[in-house]
This record gives sequence, structure tokens and C-alpha cells, in this order.
Amino acid sequence: MVTAMKNMPQATKPAFSESELAEFASKGRQILALLKSKGLYKPLKTYPARLEEGRITYGEGRPITAFEKFLGYYDKIANIANSPSISIVTDFSVARCFCKYVSAAGMDRVVLDGESDERYTKRSVKALDKFREITGVEGSFQFSIVRVKKYSKAKGLGESAAVAEATSRALVGNVFGDAAAKDNEYVSRFARLVSGSGTRAATGGMSIWASFPGIGEAECYAARLPVDTSKLHFAVFPDFHNIQTMDAHGIASSSEFYATWIKNKYDRVLKLIGAGFDLEDLMRYAQADTFRLRALLMSGGVAIDTEKSLSLINAVSSFQQGGGRVWLTADTGPSIVVMSDDKDELDAFVSGQRSRPIYGHVPELTGLSPDAAAMAKATDFFNSIR
Amino acid sequence: MVTAMKNMPQATKPAFSESELAEFASKGRQILALLKSKGLYKPLKTYPARLEEGRITYGEGRPITAFEKFLGYYDKIANIANSPSISIVTDFSVARCFCKYVSAAGMDRVVLDGESDERYTKRSVKALDKFREITGVEGSFQFSIVRVKKYSKAKGLGESAAVAEATSRALVGNVFGDAAAKDNEYVSRFARLVSGSGTRAATGGMSIWASFPGIGEAECYAARLPVDTSKLHFAVFPDFHNIQTMDAHGIASSSEFYATWIKNKYDRVLKLIGAGFDLEDLMRYAQADTFRLRALLMSGGVAIDTEKSLSLINAVSSFQQGGGRVWLTADTGPSIVVMSDDKDELDAFVSGQRSRPIYGHVPELTGLSPDAAAMAKATDFFNSIR
Repeated sequence: MVTAMKNMPQATKPAFSESELAEFASKGRQILALLKSKGLYKPLKTYPARLEEGRITYGEGRPITAFEKFLGYYDKIANIANSPSISIVTDFSVARCFCKYVSAAGMDRVVLDGESDERYTKRSVKALDKFREITGVEGSFQFSIVRVKKYSKAKGLGESAAVAEATSRALVGNVFGDAAAKDNEYVSRFARLVSGSGTRAATGGMSIWASFPGIGEAECYAARLPVDTSKLHFAVFPDFHNIQTMDAHGIASSSEFYATWIKNKYDRVLKLIGAGFDLEDLMRYAQADTFRLRALLMSGGVAIDTEKSLSLINAVSSFQQGGGRVWLTADTGPSIVVMSDDKDELDAFVSGQRSRPIYGHVPELTGLSPDAAAMAKATDFFNSIR
Repeated sequence: MVTAMKNMPQATKPAFSESELAEFASKGRQILALLKSKGLYKPLKTYPARLEEGRITYGEGRPITAFEKFLGYYDKIANIANSPSISIVTDFSVARCFCKYVSAAGMDRVVLDGESDERYTKRSVKALDKFREITGVEGSFQFSIVRVKKYSKAKGLGESAAVAEATSRALVGNVFGDAAAKDNEYVSRFARLVSGSGTRAATGGMSIWASFPGIGEAECYAARLPVDTSKLHFAVFPDFHNIQTMDAHGIASSSEFYATWIKNKYDRVLKLIGAGFDLEDLMRYAQADTFRLRALLMSGGVAIDTEKSLSLINAVSSFQQGGGRVWLTADTGPSIVVMSDDKDELDAFVSGQRSRPIYGHVPELTGLSPDAAAMAKATDFFNSIR
């Protein structure tokens, strides 16, 4: 099934006006101040670096499903987003990462699911360069990452966030020790360097990443929100498209509609804070933002939906018209998450669908203890690097 | 195939700011002045009304394919659009309309393709009320309209424009005589009352409708552009979706992206005028505006594409990436028009597609002479009305 234009032209940087940038910075500061006043955003602790040649550490990461979506970086090196964003962590997959420290420079390596991965290596070296610049540590870091998924093939299920969290957790543990690796905000800050969405993965549950133009790099991490996610029932209908490489950030931020999207996102986040992060508001906003995100991509000629995802979108709409309490959310892929604050409503919706979804949960915090077989396999990989 | 959300919530009026409205009015005036200075927009002639009980007149109308798209009315009674728009007339279908004058009030009737049509009757009475208000004529008008299409089933091929033109041409001929019915700008003004896109149908060829907030009703008609449409080669791949009723105007104008779309449309039209309506510019802009229009609908949860239309969009993109000179355009349906200024390029694209398109032409002006059988059938209909 063909779903979108291939080989889109290279995206360009969005042209925010000076007054827009000032407005975003002002509202971003306001959001940060509100979160701080509610005790949600705390200053980061500091941990001393203790490097040890050949040390291997382990970290896990979970994927995210976005509510208030994020696309577009203000600072592409430090991964500062143009806007705040909100997501939940899910258990649709897990990323498991081993990290080895090597004191020699120029030895950064990444193996993903048993294979060297050009894309992840490149992204990793960029992130590590920034990490070394920030922390002052020297030497190289080698990563062996395995993704375990509950589905065979899908796009838009937040795997890159899981990888970002896992690598950051293993890296932070390696350099700063176990206490730092268990400090979710600390892990969040460095997960951001790998992938923006990883910032929110690291803090677990429902989290906000209050990024904005002009925020300091050291302030730029996510905060867990006081949302009882045990009341959130959800299931995903995994789906994939054949868009080989899609620069969703570039396409969206090149849209003439992008500035309006960012501007209104600040206002929505302020409203959500004002209403105490009401779950129904969050779900309703997530559905509306799903369509806006698709609109941004569509305005650049990219359609990410499939016949299956369009059918699900239609089914959710019909269910809502009939008074049903389910909402949908999706990221930059055709996989559709359907959710409710009432399990019976979700079940009723699901029972009316031809395809079977995977029910999800917001997991407890991810582990730091590897299994022995995985450790042995990772050690083999590290030994193979000369 | 399910293609979009059904039963969308009722759309709301767009909230333009005062400064946006002032900007639109100012740029609209500028566009009108430029068109006048180039001799393209001429003041309307006046024709005296000469009513005759029982007179039957005939008019034809052709559909349009939009380049700079139009969605959203500033004045929903007089059908003043929020922005200028540009389209070509095509020969994918023709609407043939008989109009009978009855001096008694309250006898307006419409039959479409041999059947009374609630939607067209309602739209027609609204248009006729405005027509009677503007012209001061009294009495009722009865219409028998037949659409003849080159395809069996398709959405987005501008049929309502054809109907608007045909009814206006027959009506104008009935009230103001043959000379008025041949005066395309005069017909355009009243076609507007039936359907905005009909405004551009009436003037034929490539036309601009320089509508804007604040334009006088009597100024609000389309102008033929000096574009040699014999150099434009195009073909449509007809397609349909199962969205029963879609208020595309309402959905688009409720989008948070709508104001930006309108604002930038003024600037694009000014650029097109400045460059003398270059055919390649027009095609390139038409393709980009196709995606923006889809984005506006998508932001309201409405996806109008099908697997077939997405496949064609993808194919055009690939062809362009390979240096091919074809562009696409589409309205609010999944039917995709592919076009080029080089017939060989269009043929090369078409030969690579599995489905066969219908080649189109920009027709010469539409006729005023009915065939005898159609006239007999319409007379039967009119006689059946008591």
C-alpha cells in the first residue's frame, strides 16, 4: 500500500518572527514557573563523574505515546524543542541497553538489535559529543541495544524514545553511578540529546517536557505529572507505512501552519495546567492534536495514514457520535491508540472492530538489572570492537 | 473503503481579527486594481429585465478544477469568499439547464437529473431570493437540470460549478435576454449566488474570482485570465469517497490553520499577477495548494484520500523527483488531476499508471442552444408543476 509522497524535498528551518519567539519564551517560562510552583519541576541534583575503564552498565527504556505532540527543534544540537509536549509511557515495547566505557577517544559505537546501525551510530555520536561537552568527561561509549516489541511491524509507537531512555540510563549509570541512573529527571536531560521524545520517556507515567526557545540546556528535562494513569485504559492497533525515511520534524516545521500550531500548543498546555491535568481534557486534546499533526505533514504532501488507520479514525468518530467515551491518539505513523477513562467503553469499542489491538499499560519504572544471557551477548559485542 | 470521519461536529465561523480583515480587504482591493489596470476586470454592463410569463430559456455550464483553491465564505448569503481563487474550466462534464418563468410567487422548483432534489431546491431558493432582491424582479423560476458526465462516479470534479453556471445562464437569459446570457461576467455574478466555484465556471478558460471581505456584491464576479490554456495538458483519475455530506467550507474555516491559509493565498495571487500568470507557477502553486486544502480538512479530522488517490500522489512525486514535468491538482475529493505544459510528459506519466485517466480540455464557451429531445423533456417537467 502506497501511503505518501516519497523523497520529499529537504525541509527548511521555520521562520518564527521575533515577536513569536518572544511569546514562546514568555509562555514557556510561565509554564515552567507554574510547574515549579506545584512542586512538579525540581532543580536537578548533581553527581560527580566516576569513570572506570571497561565498565559495563545496563539501562532500560520504554516507548511513549504522545498527547500534546512534539515536532520541530529550536536547537538541533542540544535538542531543545520549539514547544512543550506531553506523553505517556507505554509497555508496547522495551529497549534494553548495555553501555561500556573506553577511555580512548574516537571509539563510540552502537549496535542495535545485533547489527551496527549507521543512523543510530551517527545520532549517538552527536549526542555523546554534546554529553561530553556538557559534563566534561572524556573517552568513548559503546552501546548494545536490543528492542523487544509486542508487535511485529509498526510505525509511530515511540520506539526511538525507548532507545533514548535506555541509552541515557545506561550512560548515566556508567558515568555517574546507580543513584544517578535512578534519578529520572537526570536521565531525562541526557535522553533528550538522543531523541526529544526520550526526554518524556525517562520520567515515566504521564510527563511534560516544558521545552521552549531560550530555555537553558540544564533546565530542559521532563517532569512527571500528577495524573493517575491507572485510570487510563488504552489499546493500540499497530500499523505501518512504507515511507522509508521521513523527516517529520523538517516537514512539519516547514509548513506555513507550523507557527500557529506551536503558538496554540502553548495556550493548550497552559489550559491543561490550569485545569489540573484533567484526564478527559488530555484525551480530547490528544485526539485533536493527532489531526493537527497529520495536517502539518499533509500540507507538505505527506499522508501517513493507511486504509486501516482511516477506518479506525472513522470508527472512533462514529463511536463518539453515539455517545461513546473513547478517544484516539497517534504519532507520526498510522498506528492508532484508542483510549478511555472507562475500561468497559474501551472494550465495547474494541469488540466492534475487525482487527485485534494490543492492550497497553503505563508501566512502573523500568529496570536496571539485565538478564545474564543478554549481558553475555553484549559482552561479546564489546569484545569484538578493537 | 472508509476514508474519513463521518458526522463531523457543526463547524463554526472563523474568527478573523480586525487587522486580518483589514489586510484581506486591502490586498483584495489591490488585486482588483491590478486586474483592472491590465484590462482584465471590466465593469459590468446593465441589462433591463424583460419578464414573460411561461418563457423557457436554456443555458449550459462546465465544471471547474481549482488551482488556487477556495473554501470559506465571508458572506454566506451573497456568497462572498474570504479570498481570491483561480481555476480552469474543464470538459469532464456538462450541465444543461432549462429555466421557466412563472409570474406567481412561491413557485420556485428544481429538478436535477430527472428528480426533485431537496438540496438543490433549497440552495436555489436562497440564490433566487438574493437574485430577486438584487434585480427587483418578481415571480418564480423553475429549473430542469441534467448533468452529463464522462465518468460514472467521482467526487471533486466541480459539478456544482457547472450546475451554478448553467442555472445562472438560463436564468439571466430568461430575465435579461440573449445578450446578457452571452455576457460571461454578468452570468458569473449570478452563478456566484448558487455556488462560489460557479463564479469562475461562467467566465471560462483560466479565471480568477477576486473576492475579498468587503467587496461589493455587484463587483464580485470572475475574470478570464490571459493564459493560453491550449498549452495546458491534463487528465483526471476519477475517484470517490463515501463521505455522505461534508461541509468542507465549515470544516476548513474552523481550522486553526485557516487564517494563515487565507493570508498567504492573497500573497500568492499577487505574485501570480506580478509574474503575468506563468503557467508553470500556476501548476506548481496548484499542487502545493492541493496539499494545504487537504491539511485544512485533516486538521478537522477529515481525510478525503483513498488508497488510489494516495498512490497517484506518490506516483506524481516520484515522477517529479526523476525530473518529470507533471503536477497534480485536486479539489475536496479524491479525484486527482495530473497536468503538464508538455503533452509528452503527461503521456509518459499516464503510461506508467495502472488506472486509465480521462484526458480533458479547456472547452470553448458553452452553448445556448438545447437539443429538441431535452427541451421536450423539460417542457413535460414544467407542465407537471401546478
